[in-house]
Amino acid sequence: MKHRVVSGMRPTGKLHIGHYHGVLENWIKIQDQFDCFFFVADWHSLTTEYADTAAIRDNIREMVLDWIAFGLNPEKSIIFRQSLVPHHAELNLILSMITPVSWLERNPTYKELQDNIEHRDLSTFGFLGYPVLMAADIILYKGTRVPVGHDQLPHLEITREITRRFNHLYGNVFPEPEAFLTQTPKLLGLDGRKMSKSYGNSIYLSDTAEETSKKVLSMMTDPARVRRADPGEPDVCVAFNLHRIYVPQEKLDEIIPACRNATIGCVECKRILAECMNDHLAPFRAKRVELSSKPEFVEELLQDGSSRASLISDAVMAEARSALKI
Amino acid sequence: MKHRVVSGMRPTGKLHIGHYHGVLENWIKIQDQFDCFFFVADWHSLTTEYADTAAIRDNIREMVLDWIAFGLNPEKSIIFRQSLVPHHAELNLILSMITPVSWLERNPTYKELQDNIEHRDLSTFGFLGYPVLMAADIILYKGTRVPVGHDQLPHLEITREITRRFNHLYGNVFPEPEAFLTQTPKLLGLDGRKMSKSYGNSIYLSDTAEETSKKVLSMMTDPARVRRADPGEPDVCVAFNLHRIYVPQEKLDEIIPACRNATIGCVECKRILAECMNDHLAPFRAKRVELSSKPEFVEELLQDGSSRASLISDAVMAEARSALKI
Repeated sequence: MKHRVVSGMRPTGKLHIGHYHGVLENWIKIQDQFDCFFFVADWHSLTTEYADTAAIRDNIREMVLDWIAFGLNPEKSIIFRQSLVPHHAELNLILSMITPVSWLERNPTYKELQDNIEHRDLSTFGFLGYPVLMAADIILYKGTRVPVGHDQLPHLEITREITRRFNHLYGNVFPEPEAFLTQTPKLLGLDGRKMSKSYGNSIYLSDTAEETSKKVLSMMTDPARVRRADPGEPDVCVAFNLHRIYVPQEKLDEIIPACRNATIGCVECKRILAECMNDHLAPFRAKRVELSSKPEFVEELLQDGSSRASLISDAVMAEARSALKI
Repeated sequence: MKHRVVSGMRPTGKLHIGHYHGVLENWIKIQDQFDCFFFVADWHSLTTEYADTAAIRDNIREMVLDWIAFGLNPEKSIIFRQSLVPHHAELNLILSMITPVSWLERNPTYKELQDNIEHRDLSTFGFLGYPVLMAADIILYKGTRVPVGHDQLPHLEITREITRRFNHLYGNVFPEPEAFLTQTPKLLGLDGRKMSKSYGNSIYLSDTAEETSKKVLSMMTDPARVRRADPGEPDVCVAFNLHRIYVPQEKLDEIIPACRNATIGCVECKRILAECMNDHLAPFRAKRVELSSKPEFVEELLQDGSSRASLISDAVMAEARSALKI
């Protein structure tokens, strides 16, 4: 039997290439191997964004346009919006009854996130409970594999503990989901820090070729290479972290020595990068422009996917309620 | 506009006369004055009973038979089961996002209940969050009045705080429910302690006349009245706390002096009580026997009531989601 994969993304708006290579590319790859459930985690976004929800709907639309334009396929996978399947909330409530507060308090990212995000008050009950909602999201579809990075393993461990506890108390309803460890390369942004929307240093999947070229040309390189005649070092060059992804190997084999002996300048080298990126991204961007011209496209896609998800979650909830004797 | 009253009862099984005079009698009275929503709080019962749910369905049936036999009227009020209206879970999840954990931790009954109930582990996330679920239960129907005893005022205060916070963040969707203070006489059980199912000292609404007489005759009286010839004192007599409810005033006017000068014995006095109780309860009990002969009665009644409740909660949730921009 095929593994069932469940994975969600918070609706943060249009995706940058860091999101793409970190998560989306992997989703697109695995949809041929597994039965996949990919969802817009809009309820999850409330755990941190509850005080300013004005952008959620636009963010959903922009993100899902990226998903589909870049290759997520609603005919292969079930693509839906969490809040359109009310069973997530129902199972979340039930699981909350059997989850000790201490499991949530010892969640290593709980305090960390609270400390790092300073402008918002994250001491809410919902924020504390987000691993419970995550457990509900996954086992509601009897997910058996969850793509996670190393940093998310502790959350998945809570999901597994909650699942065992449910099965122990009420009978064996849910499979215990296992991690499906994914490589998540940390892409550097224009300024050399991690690429992140909040730093304003991102190249978006939806940027035009011109925007991309302009951004790439403004990108930091090797900070020690001050003059054109100075030799450079690709291994410490910020732009070069993108060369490795977008520039073909034979071209890299020319560029690397040329940089080290200063026969190529940074501007020229970044022009090559911009061209390769734009070549690579062009067909997806064209599809995105086409999809975004249909105003109802995302809404209809999510409605349809959510109906399909509900058919499955409905049967699982019936089983869970029956085990609970409620 | 009529006030809208929302009130729930956990499904603890058949009700004793303490429940009746403490809560149910008041519900029956107010259903003529207000638009009432009375619900079986089965999700709430999981906050304390999650480890043993085997009896929930029977408990629901027995309790609702008492409700209807004693006068709750599904044509006047909406009578439903919480878990059949999934919006409770959805609104609970949304409210959890805006409720500070500190509001829940300072809930005076939280620690108290945890300390008092020793056999069960009540350190769960759901137990901590039950005031959030209570808030959802009430405002989901735009309840404006909530019948509570003095001891429950702190919980209602949390509901009011959560309501204000929602309205402040997202716009004025929910009225702020107010307490509707009810007299809750504490009935004494057969042994002189508070009447409680767990003490085994209760007289049930569904007891037969014979069971009632037997229990009443075994009831403690004035502990200082050791011999028949000793004078007694009704004010400290355990049985007399029921005389005040069931025995007509003119009869009490005879009994009180007769007890004080020992011209009536406790057995005779309790026979009078048992007779008055049975007279009073007989028509309700007959109705209960009749209702309980229809196996589908409770199930159908709750299904029907829950459908009616859902129609209203559906419209309120649409408004809430729209305010939340989700």
